[in-house]
Amino acid sequence: MNAALAGGRPDSRAVRSAPPLEPKSHLDAALLSGTVTNTQLTLVQIDNYGPWTVTPEPRREMDLQTLQSRLFADIAQFVGYRGGYAFFTRFDNMVAVTNGLDTDDHELLQESMGNRYPVTVSLGIGVDPNPAVALEQATEGLQRAGSAQDGDRREVLVGDPITDGSDDVSIAHFDVNDATGKYTDQLNEFDSFIQIEQGYAALMRHLREEQGGLSFFVGGDNIIAVAPEMSTDAYQGAIDHVEEAVGVDLKVGVGRGASAHEAGMAAKHALEECRHRGTAVERGDVTADGA
Amino acid sequence: MNAALAGGRPDSRAVRSAPPLEPKSHLDAALLSGTVTNTQLTLVQIDNYGPWTVTPEPRREMDLQTLQSRLFADIAQFVGYRGGYAFFTRFDNMVAVTNGLDTDDHELLQESMGNRYPVTVSLGIGVDPNPAVALEQATEGLQRAGSAQDGDRREVLVGDPITDGSDDVSIAHFDVNDATGKYTDQLNEFDSFIQIEQGYAALMRHLREEQGGLSFFVGGDNIIAVAPEMSTDAYQGAIDHVEEAVGVDLKVGVGRGASAHEAGMAAKHALEECRHRGTAVERGDVTADGA
Amino acid sequence: MNAALAGGRPDSRAVRSAPPLEPKSHLDAALLSGTVTNTQLTLVQIDNYGPWTVTPEPRREMDLQTLQSRLFADIAQFVGYRGGYAFFTRFDNMVAVTNGLDTDDHELLQESMGNRYPVTVSLGIGVDPNPAVALEQATEGLQRAGSAQDGDRREVLVGDPITDGSDDVSIAHFDVNDATGKYTDQLNEFDSFIQIEQGYAALMRHLREEQGGLSFFVGGDNIIAVAPEMSTDAYQGAIDHVEEAVGVDLKVGVGRGASAHEAGMAAKHALEECRHRGTAVERGDVTADGA
Amino acid sequence: MNAALAGGRPDSRAVRSAPPLEPKSHLDAALLSGTVTNTQLTLVQIDNYGPWTVTPEPRREMDLQTLQSRLFADIAQFVGYRGGYAFFTRFDNMVAVTNGLDTDDHELLQESMGNRYPVTVSLGIGVDPNPAVALEQATEGLQRAGSAQDGDRREVLVGDPITDGSDDVSIAHFDVNDATGKYTDQLNEFDSFIQIEQGYAALMRHLREEQGGLSFFVGGDNIIAVAPEMSTDAYQGAIDHVEEAVGVDLKVGVGRGASAHEAGMAAKHALEECRHRGTAVERGDVTADGA
Repeated sequence: MNAALAGGRPDSRAVRSAPPLEPKSHLDAALLSGTVTNTQLTLVQIDNYGPWTVTPEPRREMDLQTLQSRLFADIAQFVGYRGGYAFFTRFDNMVAVTNGLDTDDHELLQESMGNRYPVTVSLGIGVDPNPAVALEQATEGLQRAGSAQDGDRREVLVGDPITDGSDDVSIAHFDVNDATGKYTDQLNEFDSFIQIEQGYAALMRHLREEQGGLSFFVGGDNIIAVAPEMSTDAYQGAIDHVEEAVGVDLKVGVGRGASAHEAGMAAKHALEECRHRGTAVERGDVTADGA
Repeated sequence: MNAALAGGRPDSRAVRSAPPLEPKSHLDAALLSGTVTNTQLTLVQIDNYGPWTVTPEPRREMDLQTLQSRLFADIAQFVGYRGGYAFFTRFDNMVAVTNGLDTDDHELLQESMGNRYPVTVSLGIGVDPNPAVALEQATEGLQRAGSAQDGDRREVLVGDPITDGSDDVSIAHFDVNDATGKYTDQLNEFDSFIQIEQGYAALMRHLREEQGGLSFFVGGDNIIAVAPEMSTDAYQGAIDHVEEAVGVDLKVGVGRGASAHEAGMAAKHALEECRHRGTAVERGDVTADGA
Repeated sequence: MNAALAGGRPDSRAVRSAPPLEPKSHLDAALLSGTVTNTQLTLVQIDNYGPWTVTPEPRREMDLQTLQSRLFADIAQFVGYRGGYAFFTRFDNMVAVTNGLDTDDHELLQESMGNRYPVTVSLGIGVDPNPAVALEQATEGLQRAGSAQDGDRREVLVGDPITDGSDDVSIAHFDVNDATGKYTDQLNEFDSFIQIEQGYAALMRHLREEQGGLSFFVGGDNIIAVAPEMSTDAYQGAIDHVEEAVGVDLKVGVGRGASAHEAGMAAKHALEECRHRGTAVERGDVTADGA
Repeated sequence: MNAALAGGRPDSRAVRSAPPLEPKSHLDAALLSGTVTNTQLTLVQIDNYGPWTVTPEPRREMDLQTLQSRLFADIAQFVGYRGGYAFFTRFDNMVAVTNGLDTDDHELLQESMGNRYPVTVSLGIGVDPNPAVALEQATEGLQRAGSAQDGDRREVLVGDPITDGSDDVSIAHFDVNDATGKYTDQLNEFDSFIQIEQGYAALMRHLREEQGGLSFFVGGDNIIAVAPEMSTDAYQGAIDHVEEAVGVDLKVGVGRGASAHEAGMAAKHALEECRHRGTAVERGDVTADGA
């Protein structure tokens, strides 16, 4: 474990609300040594975006929403066509699983965004068996290059992609049991959303704190986590935790593969298995059509 | 569970998952009578989306992410050009403030989406001084027409827009104090995101439960709330609540106007005032350039 | 009638390349007086685009293609939702029929493009019963403000929209008889395209020179013309001209309406009538669903 | 040379307007033998698009324009990120230079379009030193599978990509000398467009008939040709032909490379050389930044 992550954060509030990653007893040494999964994450940060949105005057909110979601869509397409996954996160900062993408790919993405948008992006790459550690690396690379709101820091590209393509990535795809029947068709949309959000908030913290897994809400009642190697019991524990904490019932399909897409497709098929069998956790291998 | 939340609703399932809206003592009768603000909300629901995403096989996640975010972007542009605001919410269900949009506008949006996407949308419209009540109406209209996952329920349009354009809407634009300095430039992106998410989760519940206000995360460290008439003290109370609950420091600009865009522009300018003055709550009138 | 236009085209380059518009004997005074149709055209010109595409180095061509076609799509949506038609023309210069759009609409379009693209647009508006004259006005407005490649001329908006909405616009929708059977399913795609292009080139010149009508290729085998008031014989004459000149068989539906969309929908329905009846020219009124 | 191309076309009109490809004396045997350049072209055809646009009623033209240009933009991005070039051609039929894209890439493109648009695409691939012959192959593959308007022919993928990546492609990038000064800043936009169109029409026919080269208008005053091996004299001859036929002055940069992007970037740099030197034809090698 990285010292910066394990402690040493001076501000007590930050520590309280963004707890450091701790080694867990059920993660054995082999898992942490990186022989099993190895996640490559890229932090995509729009350069100096906040100031831009209010210069010279605050810009129309719907233009900003359109800009952000289309820029994300383009990144999702770019990364997705190479087997990766991208998550919108905060839109001005996006996280992508980029196993299989090399430095040239990252440069191409950066160049193309700069050619087509009024803003530019900086990219930080990190690699580690533990996703939270990989993202820590990716973020630190950009932070060292300057502030996200430093007008002179543009189109930074830092970090070293995996050169040996032999590693796997692990993806867990969660959804809410009968979300349509229990929420969408019963409650007003905002109250449905509160339920889903609560489930997400509980899961995101639990997986981050207990495992170093990074969970992203991807729409509807779906949450996709970039996970380290985790046992079935650990997934069941996460589901139990969310049910106990906020009363939201999840199930999860887990997949492994050489890319996020392969792992994610295996996870989706495993989630379909949950649906058919009424189970809470299923694990899938990469299927023929998962490539 | 909050007592106000726990009671009043006859259906036990609804009660648990959909906290009823209660009149608050600090909302006087005049406010509830609709003479001051009147919010028109539209629920945009993709028809039968969940089943479509896994038929005949689970579809590529990045294609779904691209589809969803572009569809939202198109709705944001359509609604935004007419003075409205759209929020992505869960992406398969989106909420828009549509004061100023009539039934023809809604039909045009529906037709255009159907012409350009592989999915269709249903639209429910609700109007009330209290946003939560307006959304309740909008949602109920669609729910009465059938389930969100009913394959035969397509392109429903229900609800009656405001015909008299004299009413106002109220928009509050929150952001996090020094989010870049405290989070983005200090923590890894996921831990920054956890902070923002926690602030959002606390605020969304508070405003919903206490006021019937609906808050939406719009990227970065920004949250936009569609609000009923609320006092400055009530806004300060919301900010205090979030700080106490999760340690996230917010400020807010509040605006009123004939449309969400006008109100929102006034709110953005008021938020700039907070920045310049170091205050936590500022209220803005519609400015000349807000139209 | 100007000799240069009426035939012969004596002067080599200037006359040939910028044929002046002259009243035609078959256009009676009433038509020119504006009581029948009145077309409002907007020239959308990307500011200083050519230099931008090679600064500091030539940009990736596929990024430029993407940028151009998406920018056009956004303009088509914006204008289309207000009842107008936009044509891609040269992409860096686009022509739109904007009857029904006022100055505020134009400002909004300009602002929104500037918020979401790395380039800005200037807009010139012209109004006349004769489309070529209207476009001449629109173009001259921008030309007076500076060169298209003047780096300091940005976001110009000139010209006066129609304030009285009582005027009509006329749209003619042409297609090629059995283009699929004769070309697409028989020739290689480029040779099919040559046929369509030749038909278009012949029609665009004929309608421009003889009538002041402006024809735009809109994909497939479709050409849409913004026309002055023209008799059925004049349409038949245009079709005959194209058949004789390049051997491409066209048919046309003609519509009138308060907006390009209304007129265009009537034209589309009239074109369907041609298909059913085997006729070459049909005229349509605005139908109930044309609005 | 293919017999079907060289002659034998039964319909005299088609022959007249889409002349068969003839071997030219200035193309030596080595060039035709395919040892130097080898172009892989993909025909992208929207399945049954014409009927779809009028079913059950004619659809809004601006929605069709938006759909078409965004679909093209997505193909341009997909192909472009892999080093290819895509041209909008007729929008319902698009032509792409796909050297470097294998069958998996084509399947991925097809799947992704089907996931995100209300229409599907069929793809035909052809390979030949002569672009017209390559497109003939690509087109025939789709034609054999059924009509473009056969409702049952969907998502066809035919043809064999190059498996040995050692071949080159040749790209010529033309533009009009001082188009802004002579046309854009002088004439109304439609008359400028007529000039450019005439130049394009003359060039597209000349290169097709004399060389088997395929020229595509790409906006502004730019034309990009996918060319066989051609001498500098042959390029000068094409420019002279266009000047004599329609009075439009062109210049051209020519590039070679392993991909359309590499060749095209070399062509763009060569065109910049024309600009600086005042020459009409320049040839470029792949530059370091062309990859």
